[in-house]
Amino acid sequence: MDKVRVSIAGGSGYTGGELLRLLLFHPRAEVAQVTSESLAGKFVFKAHPNLRKRTQLQFSALDDLRPCDVLFVSLPHGKSMEKMREFRALAPRIIDLSADFRLRQERDYREWYGNSHACPEMLGEFVYGIPELHREEMKRTSFISSAGCNATVTILGLYPFFKLGIVDPNRTVVEVKVGSSEGGNAPSAASHHPERSGAVRSFMPTNHRHTAEVIQELSFREAIQIHMSVTSIEMVRGALATSHVFLNQPLEEKDVWKVLRQVYGEEPFIRIVKESEGTHRYPEPKWLIGTNYCDIGFSKDEKSNRMVMISAIDNLMKGAAGQAIQAFNIMHGFEETEGLEFPGLHPI
Amino acid sequence: MDKVRVSIAGGSGYTGGELLRLLLFHPRAEVAQVTSESLAGKFVFKAHPNLRKRTQLQFSALDDLRPCDVLFVSLPHGKSMEKMREFRALAPRIIDLSADFRLRQERDYREWYGNSHACPEMLGEFVYGIPELHREEMKRTSFISSAGCNATVTILGLYPFFKLGIVDPNRTVVEVKVGSSEGGNAPSAASHHPERSGAVRSFMPTNHRHTAEVIQELSFREAIQIHMSVTSIEMVRGALATSHVFLNQPLEEKDVWKVLRQVYGEEPFIRIVKESEGTHRYPEPKWLIGTNYCDIGFSKDEKSNRMVMISAIDNLMKGAAGQAIQAFNIMHGFEETEGLEFPGLHPI
Amino acid sequence: MDKVRVSIAGGSGYTGGELLRLLLFHPRAEVAQVTSESLAGKFVFKAHPNLRKRTQLQFSALDDLRPCDVLFVSLPHGKSMEKMREFRALAPRIIDLSADFRLRQERDYREWYGNSHACPEMLGEFVYGIPELHREEMKRTSFISSAGCNATVTILGLYPFFKLGIVDPNRTVVEVKVGSSEGGNAPSAASHHPERSGAVRSFMPTNHRHTAEVIQELSFREAIQIHMSVTSIEMVRGALATSHVFLNQPLEEKDVWKVLRQVYGEEPFIRIVKESEGTHRYPEPKWLIGTNYCDIGFSKDEKSNRMVMISAIDNLMKGAAGQAIQAFNIMHGFEETEGLEFPGLHPI
Amino acid sequence: MDKVRVSIAGGSGYTGGELLRLLLFHPRAEVAQVTSESLAGKFVFKAHPNLRKRTQLQFSALDDLRPCDVLFVSLPHGKSMEKMREFRALAPRIIDLSADFRLRQERDYREWYGNSHACPEMLGEFVYGIPELHREEMKRTSFISSAGCNATVTILGLYPFFKLGIVDPNRTVVEVKVGSSEGGNAPSAASHHPERSGAVRSFMPTNHRHTAEVIQELSFREAIQIHMSVTSIEMVRGALATSHVFLNQPLEEKDVWKVLRQVYGEEPFIRIVKESEGTHRYPEPKWLIGTNYCDIGFSKDEKSNRMVMISAIDNLMKGAAGQAIQAFNIMHGFEETEGLEFPGLHPI
Repeated sequence: MDKVRVSIAGGSGYTGGELLRLLLFHPRAEVAQVTSESLAGKFVFKAHPNLRKRTQLQFSALDDLRPCDVLFVSLPHGKSMEKMREFRALAPRIIDLSADFRLRQERDYREWYGNSHACPEMLGEFVYGIPELHREEMKRTSFISSAGCNATVTILGLYPFFKLGIVDPNRTVVEVKVGSSEGGNAPSAASHHPERSGAVRSFMPTNHRHTAEVIQELSFREAIQIHMSVTSIEMVRGALATSHVFLNQPLEEKDVWKVLRQVYGEEPFIRIVKESEGTHRYPEPKWLIGTNYCDIGFSKDEKSNRMVMISAIDNLMKGAAGQAIQAFNIMHGFEETEGLEFPGLHPI
Repeated sequence: MDKVRVSIAGGSGYTGGELLRLLLFHPRAEVAQVTSESLAGKFVFKAHPNLRKRTQLQFSALDDLRPCDVLFVSLPHGKSMEKMREFRALAPRIIDLSADFRLRQERDYREWYGNSHACPEMLGEFVYGIPELHREEMKRTSFISSAGCNATVTILGLYPFFKLGIVDPNRTVVEVKVGSSEGGNAPSAASHHPERSGAVRSFMPTNHRHTAEVIQELSFREAIQIHMSVTSIEMVRGALATSHVFLNQPLEEKDVWKVLRQVYGEEPFIRIVKESEGTHRYPEPKWLIGTNYCDIGFSKDEKSNRMVMISAIDNLMKGAAGQAIQAFNIMHGFEETEGLEFPGLHPI
Repeated sequence: MDKVRVSIAGGSGYTGGELLRLLLFHPRAEVAQVTSESLAGKFVFKAHPNLRKRTQLQFSALDDLRPCDVLFVSLPHGKSMEKMREFRALAPRIIDLSADFRLRQERDYREWYGNSHACPEMLGEFVYGIPELHREEMKRTSFISSAGCNATVTILGLYPFFKLGIVDPNRTVVEVKVGSSEGGNAPSAASHHPERSGAVRSFMPTNHRHTAEVIQELSFREAIQIHMSVTSIEMVRGALATSHVFLNQPLEEKDVWKVLRQVYGEEPFIRIVKESEGTHRYPEPKWLIGTNYCDIGFSKDEKSNRMVMISAIDNLMKGAAGQAIQAFNIMHGFEETEGLEFPGLHPI
Repeated sequence: MDKVRVSIAGGSGYTGGELLRLLLFHPRAEVAQVTSESLAGKFVFKAHPNLRKRTQLQFSALDDLRPCDVLFVSLPHGKSMEKMREFRALAPRIIDLSADFRLRQERDYREWYGNSHACPEMLGEFVYGIPELHREEMKRTSFISSAGCNATVTILGLYPFFKLGIVDPNRTVVEVKVGSSEGGNAPSAASHHPERSGAVRSFMPTNHRHTAEVIQELSFREAIQIHMSVTSIEMVRGALATSHVFLNQPLEEKDVWKVLRQVYGEEPFIRIVKESEGTHRYPEPKWLIGTNYCDIGFSKDEKSNRMVMISAIDNLMKGAAGQAIQAFNIMHGFEETEGLEFPGLHPI
């Protein structure tokens, strides 16, 4: 069985480390190179202590990247767009995990990121990286742009209802609770343990950039509004979106089950979690640590037309590296769950 | 200086313990009795390890309660209404920390609590226990019903805007994040550390009982709707409400400041926390641990009429025992901050 | 490839759940039955939320256990010895994860557990379940008794030095720091989140039962003493032993490296972690969550003959279920790492 | 009542912030100045969010320090000794919280800190800052050097036994578990939340500098050895020392109680915590958060002459600022508990 030769541009961060871990153990992939400017020449386990004794791979400099079959790009936002023309000369297939090719409209970058785009001509070539929405396009494309973590967890909770047009398009309020790993691996006053530990930090009450992706992916008819907030809580990995939608038609609980089964019934990485009793009634990010699942639950308000969708992921997995591997599998016609079988731990 | 003789009915739980701590160190109060059925005859520090070497007080049985000047009632919900007629014979002033006398309408108990009320004739005698809304009534009443923790943090964040009628009355979405002490001191499968630790548990996505109080206290004109969810996170003490309101008139940031200063400018326990930079830009419950503050901040969405109000408290203090002491001070004409001076700790 | 038919007696607890997870994904095993008295007839994912959508297996009652190739016993201590004669009639091979067959001497049960043994005639048939000490015996036995978690982490850190007789046999002090999952899945006042969260609880400063195993396994010559304490800290999974040994001959750091390499150089699940700089200088249980590793480091006191050995494991893996699978692999001649490849996560 | 005019040199760090908080609310002190080079001219609540609305004090530059009655010095180690000659010209009384004047012998600085001392002539003038050991000297001195946090918690647990000479002087092993606030307020890769959260980090297995203080203070007869390790765990505030001593004479539990009562019976900030049942059997740092207590418990090993002393403090209080205020009170003849009445919180 031939293996796909993959490299990772930007492998010292948390997302790069997860990509590396997944690819090292992926039965159909062979890791050729992984880059880091600051750690070039050092063993990868210096950055990723979990990989000690699992690989003798060393970091390369970005300039030393050689041609490969698939290039995963896990560089900081802004850096990826600068380098993309070079990268496409190195690899026929690219999966980019930065935000640089998620939005289809150049003007959206100016509006939400405040910068002009360095490589606008390629924006149209990238498929947005959520397989549950774009599986068929992924099978035919050469370029995939992995979705943002907060965007992924929000979109997957809301997609069935916006797709079917059964919610008020302007009233949805989304509150995402996230862990500290979302901030990357660079220390700062804000990430200093005595300050960050136990915090309930209103990180982005308004104006979170991932809102642009959510709006893009959930706009099927008219213009829509998504009122999103992101709050950082005591957690390293994980994201949970509590999304309040307002139904534009009367749906009972069994109807909601039907909608979810219809849209997600065959999805290998979506689970509906809604129990009437016990401790595990709704999705819980901690049971998803290390997995590629998005668990989805809901609660219908008996006193109004509000329905609360609850969706949870591991932000570094389904929200980043795991979803990128899922896309990689689809792109190559592999089993979609290949290399993503880890079921999570209980307790943790 | 004469001291007020106070007793606590129900003193072995978390709220009762905080009441006891505050009253033991209150310069104008003298604790006569504190009850616990299961611990009667035992030293109070068996239940409250922080009080070791600070008092030799022992628990009494409820039936042994003697007359006192003020009776604090910290019994489980449902128990308080059963006993209230007896209690009023024991003490001329009562501050009840259960939910039993918060709602003015008997039918609201049936609707939200599913039970009929055991003492409906007294519902009208109780003043709802948030001083920032009912200070003047508190000076004249004999009965105060302390507000719920989630209700307090929500109401204080929203009050100025509903009072002034400048928000859409039906669109407000409130997401409260709470710690494990809200669940009381009885262990359960849900509170077992390996399960509860690091959880992001959708405790009450809809139908939270405190919603009834919030609606009651924020209804100044027309009928209103409050769409509330409560999520339990990794935290022992603290509650933070992220409240999304939709303005019915254009307000800029400086107008919001003006509203907040107008309504809360003189309040000793309200602080407006909104910085443009640094780690401490918005209210943070962990800096409020042990204090009676409600910190309030906000963020105006530049792209819509949404404004996000962020309010934080210590659920056992401003959300329970602390606010009860504040009411006690007002009732007796003491300095409102008496016994509530602790400023909180940094870091913690 | 024929699969080994395995069953689990006692599968609703944390150790049983981990066994089940590992066996469900083990390429050479097929899970026949898993028992729980309280959950008989229910899906296993009711107890183990991570297994949702991964298996449709349901719990059986213990009385309904059918013959199988290997029976894993994960019943509470005391229960296992009562049932062992029945179990051996059901399965030719048994791996017991309780404490009931760890000690070779019946009198040690009376001394350390305070009870007489219900099945003393089988004590001699069981091999103590640490492969690094008893690999060859495991290949020939039918009965393995999995080692205690605190005993495993302590023994593996100390073994090379006691084996070689280069430490004072009476002075070793061991301080084990453990997470809350060691206490099992039954809630109690002590495991209630507001009490247990952030605790540094001197669980067993003296007289910890696992001491008996440690002494048994490290006694190669004269009688030895191990002065052991166990402290519960804020952590769900994981155990770290800080073991202070006093060398009876002058060893430099390079000599210690030599000893460790000599004893553990070929071990698939032992890693020596000792860096002179960086954040990851010594073993850290959090990087081991979900893995079967025991990471070992050390620090030689420059001012005395003390050497501090630092060893870390995941208490439910190398300290329980993982080590049992490792033994299972050895027993059957499988690759020792089969089903135990998960490398752990960073960050977590 | 005249107030003592105090200033704080170095007030932006965690210890400086606690000093400031305590002094602002101390009935006998008046804070004149508090310095910070980086924040000079800014409100103190920029650094200490708990002080918002409690003081309008602003930071001064160190060069702008004016004469005062008592100068608290909370500068980084090494900086204090450089400035001490200047400081003594500004204030007749100085309480230094750095390590610079804790050791009486200049050569000890070279041995443990690796540097020569910049102000050796003053070493003999400072009283070591643990009141339980040096109360009488504190009443007469002008210079107090506050003890290290790990040293304080260790010394207070061991003092009675070394004082009375009833333990083997060379065998004591001390394992201190500490929180992240011990590292100060400067962010680093090691304090980055995703790395530090949930860590069990062998910070200093050997060679911890506070060992020098412990040896100095516990040497009453012959030379002694203290084998100390410090491990950082998931906790912000708090330190717990588990100290294993070996008795040189047979003592029963009641004898140990007698020793402790004899030595500490009158101490306002020492509590003996040892219960035979319940969750709170031994000292627990989390109940001490914000207090000046050192709680002490013990467990006698039935099988050997080992006794485990367990002592707990809040490292920023009894381990730093609180103990400094206690010394300040003693120095001035105030009630020793003045300004230190806070009893701690339960739960937290």
